[in-house]
Amino acid sequence: MPRILAISGGVGGAKLALGLAKILGPEQLTFVVNTGDDFEHLGFYIAPDVDTLTYTLAEVSNTETGWGRGDESWQFMDALEALGGETWFRLGDRDLALHVTRTRMLDAGATLSEATDHICRALGVQHRVLPMSDDPVRTTVHTPEGPLAFQHYFVRDRCKPAVTGFEFEGVAAAALNPQIRECLLESDLDGIVICPSNPFVSIDPLLHIPGARDALQGAGVPIVAVSPIVGGTAIKGPTAKMMQELKVPASAEQVARHYGDLLTGLVLDEQDRGLHGALNTPTTVAQTVMVTLQDRVDLGHTVLDFIASFG
Amino acid sequence: MPRILAISGGVGGAKLALGLAKILGPEQLTFVVNTGDDFEHLGFYIAPDVDTLTYTLAEVSNTETGWGRGDESWQFMDALEALGGETWFRLGDRDLALHVTRTRMLDAGATLSEATDHICRALGVQHRVLPMSDDPVRTTVHTPEGPLAFQHYFVRDRCKPAVTGFEFEGVAAAALNPQIRECLLESDLDGIVICPSNPFVSIDPLLHIPGARDALQGAGVPIVAVSPIVGGTAIKGPTAKMMQELKVPASAEQVARHYGDLLTGLVLDEQDRGLHGALNTPTTVAQTVMVTLQDRVDLGHTVLDFIASFG
Repeated sequence: MPRILAISGGVGGAKLALGLAKILGPEQLTFVVNTGDDFEHLGFYIAPDVDTLTYTLAEVSNTETGWGRGDESWQFMDALEALGGETWFRLGDRDLALHVTRTRMLDAGATLSEATDHICRALGVQHRVLPMSDDPVRTTVHTPEGPLAFQHYFVRDRCKPAVTGFEFEGVAAAALNPQIRECLLESDLDGIVICPSNPFVSIDPLLHIPGARDALQGAGVPIVAVSPIVGGTAIKGPTAKMMQELKVPASAEQVARHYGDLLTGLVLDEQDRGLHGALNTPTTVAQTVMVTLQDRVDLGHTVLDFIASFG
Repeated sequence: MPRILAISGGVGGAKLALGLAKILGPEQLTFVVNTGDDFEHLGFYIAPDVDTLTYTLAEVSNTETGWGRGDESWQFMDALEALGGETWFRLGDRDLALHVTRTRMLDAGATLSEATDHICRALGVQHRVLPMSDDPVRTTVHTPEGPLAFQHYFVRDRCKPAVTGFEFEGVAAAALNPQIRECLLESDLDGIVICPSNPFVSIDPLLHIPGARDALQGAGVPIVAVSPIVGGTAIKGPTAKMMQELKVPASAEQVARHYGDLLTGLVLDEQDRGLHGALNTPTTVAQTVMVTLQDRVDLGHTVLDFIASFG
């Protein structure tokens, strides 16, 4: 079985992550997850992408919303609202236990990686989930009305403001998670997967960590992305809207251009078959819109076969 | 209507507090509440007696347990347990919203009084609830096995360790809540009620604040206590057990002796009618065991009449 490092943001990426985890065991597959949209809220350290990936791999996620836990209740939120508290970021009663646990560990001096590892083990997640960095990186979204902290843009303002650019505060001083560096140096690494996540706010924070892009390329293995843009639109989230606002084509081709020489290959959706063979980057075509678990597993196989094809 | 300051600890005291609040409006009645059993837990500032009084006055308390909120759910606690967290102190989903709100306010620089005031207003409590001090006072219970933080003794260890004494950490540096001092200086104050709370751990922390006892006596109004000991036993909590361990009689007489010259009068239960007229302190006899709301109101009237009798 191949050894794979899979890089993911939130909901979209986590779908493929679960598919891969159904194929490859914890010794064959490690996840790297974006922390650029982490923030402090109500006194808690909240890591939305880490949590979405963790809950998805633990198979306790809310499959309707894509975020949070399934079988969730909202008594805390209702009571908080009655006390005049902020409710724009919804924290379920069960989900809250994760935030309390992690915040406690961080306050006691643990790293985000250590807290993530503890939580994953407690929830029965066997694969390693590695935050991209243990240092704070905070994505800021620039808009004509001024900068917005990512969760304010994404959740509070529902991605409505037009995007003019991004900034990853703290990234210049952030170190790539040493465990990621170790994975990349392992001689039996077979490939790197960039899950169908938002290139600008889910993958770019990692790529802006000093040395991270070089470390990924330096591994000398195929780096394959799945396009989050399908037929000119995003399956989930504001990727296509952002591209329009940034005055670049909302296309899989532009995704390939965005990642540039990082990519060895790009997985296109069936809807974008017309682009197959027409890009500077090698491509393969598959059904990338994942509805069922089988869709995720199928796409996982496609990605792994694609990586193997470069061997 | 008389102007009354009522001093309360947790469950037992809060019962009478509610009775008084049904008789006297917010302009006639102010509450002082123990903070000696406050503690930090799971990153939250928790004030059990303040909360019990607040929930009781808001009539959202759990009337079965005496602590916490009624109509409560425990999803957070269950999820926390699954994550390996501490569960000996039960925090309900709705209750948690109070702790988050207060902790946030304190972290932002508010005093405990300000946070309490905000929460009381939000919950519709009209009477003022004044924490005894805005400075930290932490009750430590001494036992043959060493000192125990109060909640460890009271909740975690269920009052099982034998008590050899008490210490109120921080009390020497604590200031009496200035709003209490103002109340005591008001010319139209008519009396002070010491609710049927544990003298050692619910009332003594206040009395050990430098100048507090003098300030109470200096108000020049009757100070009337309701004995928490009825027929040699405590209605609620470890008061009688503590007295036995401290080698003093577990009796209402000993309660009077404990408060000493602070008291103008003591309300005895019917079961202790034999002590009426036999103490150095003036007494009155009433049904002090409060089961129904009417019991609380009746005892409230008894206490107010008793205070008036010294006028």
